[in-house]
Amino acid sequence: MWILHQYPLCPFSRKIRFQCAEKGVAVECVREHPWERRDAFLLLNPAGQTPVFVQGAVTLSDSTAIAEYLEETVERTPLYGAGAEARAETRRMCAWVDQKFYSEVVVPLLAERMFKRLVTRGQPDAATIRGAQRAAEGHLDYLDYLLEHRRWLSGPAFGLADVAAAAQVSVADYLGGIDWDGHEETRTWYSAIKSRPTFRPLLAERMEGLPPPAHYDKLDF
Amino acid sequence: MWILHQYPLCPFSRKIRFQCAEKGVAVECVREHPWERRDAFLLLNPAGQTPVFVQGAVTLSDSTAIAEYLEETVERTPLYGAGAEARAETRRMCAWVDQKFYSEVVVPLLAERMFKRLVTRGQPDAATIRGAQRAAEGHLDYLDYLLEHRRWLSGPAFGLADVAAAAQVSVADYLGGIDWDGHEETRTWYSAIKSRPTFRPLLAERMEGLPPPAHYDKLDF
Ligand SMILES: N[C@@H](CCC(=O)N[C@@H](CS)C(=O)NCC(=O)O)C(=O)O
Ligand SMILES: N[C@@H](CCC(=O)N[C@@H](CS)C(=O)NCC(=O)O)C(=O)O
Repeated sequence: MWILHQYPLCPFSRKIRFQCAEKGVAVECVREHPWERRDAFLLLNPAGQTPVFVQGAVTLSDSTAIAEYLEETVERTPLYGAGAEARAETRRMCAWVDQKFYSEVVVPLLAERMFKRLVTRGQPDAATIRGAQRAAEGHLDYLDYLLEHRRWLSGPAFGLADVAAAAQVSVADYLGGIDWDGHEETRTWYSAIKSRPTFRPLLAERMEGLPPPAHYDKLDF
Repeated sequence: MWILHQYPLCPFSRKIRFQCAEKGVAVECVREHPWERRDAFLLLNPAGQTPVFVQGAVTLSDSTAIAEYLEETVERTPLYGAGAEARAETRRMCAWVDQKFYSEVVVPLLAERMFKRLVTRGQPDAATIRGAQRAAEGHLDYLDYLLEHRRWLSGPAFGLADVAAAAQVSVADYLGGIDWDGHEETRTWYSAIKSRPTFRPLLAERMEGLPPPAHYDKLDF
């Protein structure tokens, strides 16, 4: 069985867990807090980042590399789309959410609302949180626009762009970063994601000492 | 012919140009300064980033998506390695240099030494530049360590990890960010890269008003 080194609010780990669930790959999760910079973990991944995906002598890190590996080795439920152009669009959208949404929305929310609460016990900075919420607004506008033209984020079929985006959006939503008002297209999309049985275990999970807002795991939000 | 929207010191554009040269794909470069945020460019790539790769009705952005597209569509000179595990290692190393090396070394050097010189005409911040140089030291130590165990960065064969790393290292070197002393393995590797005919056009190019250090394009440096 694959072992995934992760913590509940790591969006890249959520991406791999959601992808594995869609593909029917069993995963055992092992808790890792990358900010502790444990020597044993740095040996697994010198970048010091979650997720790390291990089975026997195979140790993989970087969620994009892991996702491509799963796509290449597990035939069931292909998630990149048909044809080179569709696959490029899937990868463009994954890079968008993994890099832009993550750094502009998720990083400041994790820093202010998770790290300060659980690790350094400092006061969250309200201006930084507002900045992340405003950035989320802009990103949801873009997702709304895409979803006016497409059934799923990278085209007609559910795929890895939806998996990656749901992972980032769900962490931002957990941390109170998303105001769903006025984002009907993205709300409808996320509601469809939330009702997938493969996604529900992620929604049910909690980071200790850090409860999500009441709407977080509701199908009607 | 493919058109690449880029500027000479964009490392992600260098990655695509070097990959195309290795694969024998002809590319016409068109100049774009992403910081100008031109409307016409934002229509091509809403992320507002170079590179963008265009041919007829096909418009691709994000260099990782472009690189995978080229690997899937151009048979000549496969660059990801043989087998899923080797391919995962190629992608892990690409993510390392594209994300960690880029953000810790190249971003501050571009900001202080290119952007302030050519655009805002401000004073470069010496402490930021020293921080980037120190970060480069750490990265070169890691590359040295890898190259003690492998012929190329992701394994026995030249591949996309070498292409991506050479792109980032060459921009850092252009901007005076690299001290080669004490990095014999990486120096030997980079010397082999510099002597590839596919890389020489990149080394010959200049950003106007911003000359590189004397050793930059020398094979013996
Ligand atoms: N490119 C990596 C990014 C992973 C990442 O940034 N993980 C975060 C946790 S959500 C982390 O470990 N950060 C600690 C650090 O960067 O030192 C991936 O896709 O796996
Ligand atoms: N993930 C993108 C990153 C591209 C990128 O960051 N390009 C820089 C130039 S080197 C840029 O356009 N920056 C302007 C911006 O981010 O607004 C890729 O791999 O293509």
